[in-house]
Amino acid sequence: MPAPLKFVGLDVGGTTMKAAVVDDAGKPSASVVMDTHPERGQEAGLETMCETIRRAVAAAKLKMADIAAVGVATPGLMDIAAGLILDPPNLKPWKNVPVRDHIAQAFGKPTAFENDANAAAYGEFWVGAGQEATSLVMFTLGTGVGGGIILGDTIVEGEHSHGGELGHLRIDLPDRGRLCGCGARGCLEAYASASAVTARAREELAAWRGPTKLKAYYTANDDELTAKVVFDLALAGDECATKVMDDTAYFLALGACATIAAVDPEMIVIGGGMTAAGEPFRAKIEEYIRRFGLPHPVKKVKVVFAKLGSDAGFIGAAGCARRLLRQQERREEIPVPG
Amino acid sequence: MPAPLKFVGLDVGGTTMKAAVVDDAGKPSASVVMDTHPERGQEAGLETMCETIRRAVAAAKLKMADIAAVGVATPGLMDIAAGLILDPPNLKPWKNVPVRDHIAQAFGKPTAFENDANAAAYGEFWVGAGQEATSLVMFTLGTGVGGGIILGDTIVEGEHSHGGELGHLRIDLPDRGRLCGCGARGCLEAYASASAVTARAREELAAWRGPTKLKAYYTANDDELTAKVVFDLALAGDECATKVMDDTAYFLALGACATIAAVDPEMIVIGGGMTAAGEPFRAKIEEYIRRFGLPHPVKKVKVVFAKLGSDAGFIGAAGCARRLLRQQERREEIPVPG
Repeated sequence: MPAPLKFVGLDVGGTTMKAAVVDDAGKPSASVVMDTHPERGQEAGLETMCETIRRAVAAAKLKMADIAAVGVATPGLMDIAAGLILDPPNLKPWKNVPVRDHIAQAFGKPTAFENDANAAAYGEFWVGAGQEATSLVMFTLGTGVGGGIILGDTIVEGEHSHGGELGHLRIDLPDRGRLCGCGARGCLEAYASASAVTARAREELAAWRGPTKLKAYYTANDDELTAKVVFDLALAGDECATKVMDDTAYFLALGACATIAAVDPEMIVIGGGMTAAGEPFRAKIEEYIRRFGLPHPVKKVKVVFAKLGSDAGFIGAAGCARRLLRQQERREEIPVPG
Repeated sequence: MPAPLKFVGLDVGGTTMKAAVVDDAGKPSASVVMDTHPERGQEAGLETMCETIRRAVAAAKLKMADIAAVGVATPGLMDIAAGLILDPPNLKPWKNVPVRDHIAQAFGKPTAFENDANAAAYGEFWVGAGQEATSLVMFTLGTGVGGGIILGDTIVEGEHSHGGELGHLRIDLPDRGRLCGCGARGCLEAYASASAVTARAREELAAWRGPTKLKAYYTANDDELTAKVVFDLALAGDECATKVMDDTAYFLALGACATIAAVDPEMIVIGGGMTAAGEPFRAKIEEYIRRFGLPHPVKKVKVVFAKLGSDAGFIGAAGCARRLLRQQERREEIPVPG
């Protein structure tokens, strides 16, 4: 009996990149982290990706020959089909970086390439919160609001590599909504990202008449008044902070309801730092989804928190490598007509 | 060389049902129409479906033996995977009608079952406006606003048969938006359905200070003041009617932008009676999509009108029959391991 297949998943971010060997059942070995240093240029960046992969293999006490395929996840903008990073704002000055082909040639392995938020969603789908689900929509609450949609074996990458850009679902009209970093108004990200939560907390605080511990943060900068502070105070019973948390759940639910009307998934998965707020936050999101979503599907849709934390990206990237290998095998199995 | 395959597509509506034989290239023979008479009960309804299929085959001067597979499209609520009509509001008093199995047994043919709006989208994808596209999102403007999403060979049916319910994408907040027939506020359907267009026209008219030919309809009932009247006046240069048409394009564009953020399709297809307004209406929709959608994909997304008109449903149903047959053949081609 051959040894079970092993994959390497690499998740490239603007500050660091993280990789690990992941086995055929989705279990990761020890992960390794290296600084991305995008400012050193894309050639150096590609070499750092290769080195991170090599170190991950070494950390698992394996050799490259033991690895069946590699998966790489990167932030957008990208051209997924072409295997290119285009010019992502947090990887400046990189431009048109042929990640997939470079990695494939460096190691001589089948190499999958995926958007980082899609990879995280696929990780949760493969071995995380959505392991038993046949479809899911994932929202990741962080500096921005990321998203990924998995329908059966389809990762919704989109025609222009922008599938699952759920932070830019609009939840209010463009002439009225909050201003988003993308330049538009009303995007979910302008309501539910970490900085949007603190911005809304400042507004609530300025208008709040009752007692609230948030007052101690009135003149604080954003390093001190964080989404975590707001959510912690909410969990401790602070009414003003609770309103901010509830509103966050409400806005997020409106985004989720849009995806329910569009793709009607089995499961909504919420990931990112704010999920540390736990069950009270999850229950509020679920309550608002059931209240404001399409009546029939929202009776049944599951609303859960992600399980893989910040490992979702590289686990999902490894999952994409495994999926690629299976697709290649399946294509070889089909007899060619004639 | 065997004769090209022939399929029957049947599109069941609340008032009538329509069927035709469709060949392997998507070309329909003469279609036949029968009254649905849902009030006569579901047994009678199933028999009418069979009779409509038989008449369509006869109208094409064929025999049932010439037909490779059958496709049936029905309005929701339904359970697509189980082949059931559940209890659609416009097919009362039908309940849990086993359409797919009944038709399959009646004719002894592989039978595909699909939601009518999804089938229409698949028809446009197969041989209509989206014939050259690899993915599309379709909005159908009628009594309601229907939708369908096709991604490659995937019809987005959803986990609970509610995929592509694009009339219920919310474009305004639930405490502020217009009231929709579904009971919620802010749904696209409450802005862009035929009755929503006339309702908005009445509101504009009541507040309008300048000249407008819509004034002649001030006391008209909904049989007289129709969306068609409004759009015809807009095309004739009436300013008040033009505002109503532009706003319709704006609201529809906001719905389209939500699907672009979610699934990033190659093409947005608009169908239904209002598309008779032609290029000025289409151009406005496109303008608003490019202005309010996610910057990168909206530069490239195509915005087009549907081509198959009211035949899209039965052509798409026949397309689903063809697709089913191909899927079955493909499964048989794959060698079983071991």
